[in-house]
Amino acid sequence: MTSRLFSFVGGDSGPWRITSVRAVAGEPIAQTPRLWVVPDLVAGTAPPSGWVLRGITSNERYVVRSEKDHLLARQQGLGRSEATCAALIPIRKSPAWWALTQDERRAIFEEQSHHTRIGLNYLPAVARRLHHCRDLSASEPFDFLTWFEFAPEHEASFNHMLAELRATPEWAYVEREVDIRLVRDGR
Amino acid sequence: MTSRLFSFVGGDSGPWRITSVRAVAGEPIAQTPRLWVVPDLVAGTAPPSGWVLRGITSNERYVVRSEKDHLLARQQGLGRSEATCAALIPIRKSPAWWALTQDERRAIFEEQSHHTRIGLNYLPAVARRLHHCRDLSASEPFDFLTWFEFAPEHEASFNHMLAELRATPEWAYVEREVDIRLVRDGR
Repeated sequence: MTSRLFSFVGGDSGPWRITSVRAVAGEPIAQTPRLWVVPDLVAGTAPPSGWVLRGITSNERYVVRSEKDHLLARQQGLGRSEATCAALIPIRKSPAWWALTQDERRAIFEEQSHHTRIGLNYLPAVARRLHHCRDLSASEPFDFLTWFEFAPEHEASFNHMLAELRATPEWAYVEREVDIRLVRDGR
Repeated sequence: MTSRLFSFVGGDSGPWRITSVRAVAGEPIAQTPRLWVVPDLVAGTAPPSGWVLRGITSNERYVVRSEKDHLLARQQGLGRSEATCAALIPIRKSPAWWALTQDERRAIFEEQSHHTRIGLNYLPAVARRLHHCRDLSASEPFDFLTWFEFAPEHEASFNHMLAELRATPEWAYVEREVDIRLVRDGR
């Protein structure tokens, strides 16, 4: 069985070099030189001067069948040789978001904010894996970790996608967001 | 902050006496004499001859606003003095369920199976707390743990509710279910 649990380990080693760490909303996190993406890491193994963010892949919570079929037809997997740029974007949403019901969250997510429709415009250039943290324990620092991979020539396009998403009504519920950029140089 | 994480510890001690353990579908679990319900228990503390099942309360995944308002208006909390009977029902759904999209799961859950509507008929007699396990780790034995409390005179009614739910299309996706009954005798 492939792992559903992934740990993002920021420290002094790893194949990804961290080029910037920016707090978009709320508390920042420390910039470390490098990052590993590790399946199935147990808790409590953060490097001395670094951090570990954990998340688990899960079923989708908002997309309907027609949207999923579009996504499946267009999306690419992680690990493409040309996709040497990455972004790790941890997000926490507010208590007000989590107090909404499913139909209210769906309405904000898609009918008002077009989250999936915006993302579809950037496929297949941007590959993506969403990890959930909120239900890993009662004290996770973020609700979601999204990992993106793309080729250098698509970086401007990727930035445009983030600007579109951050301008939506859904983002009014984002109380903490960090934008971590990386390049793979294999060291 | 109140805890979202709860551990159900089956062993030789605890305020709840286990009166029966029945495997409804799939693998059974061991019948132990007694049970504790413990907030925030760390992993790895199962009694020598017992078990620990862990789950976390979370946002609702299917109810819409009108249904939630009905639930809030009618439901009672846990810990009522007259509610000396309890049931712990761990459930695992099949991979086919988790491969469905949100709209497909909602349609089976409510439009076809009337899960919330059936439950509403048994309020306020039956109090309930749902715990999610699926996203606690990649290897939990169950997807959900539901804890019910009711007075002895409502046991037949509670059994009728379970029979109604188990006859629905939703239950075709239940691949493991254990029905644990308990009484509180304070020892």
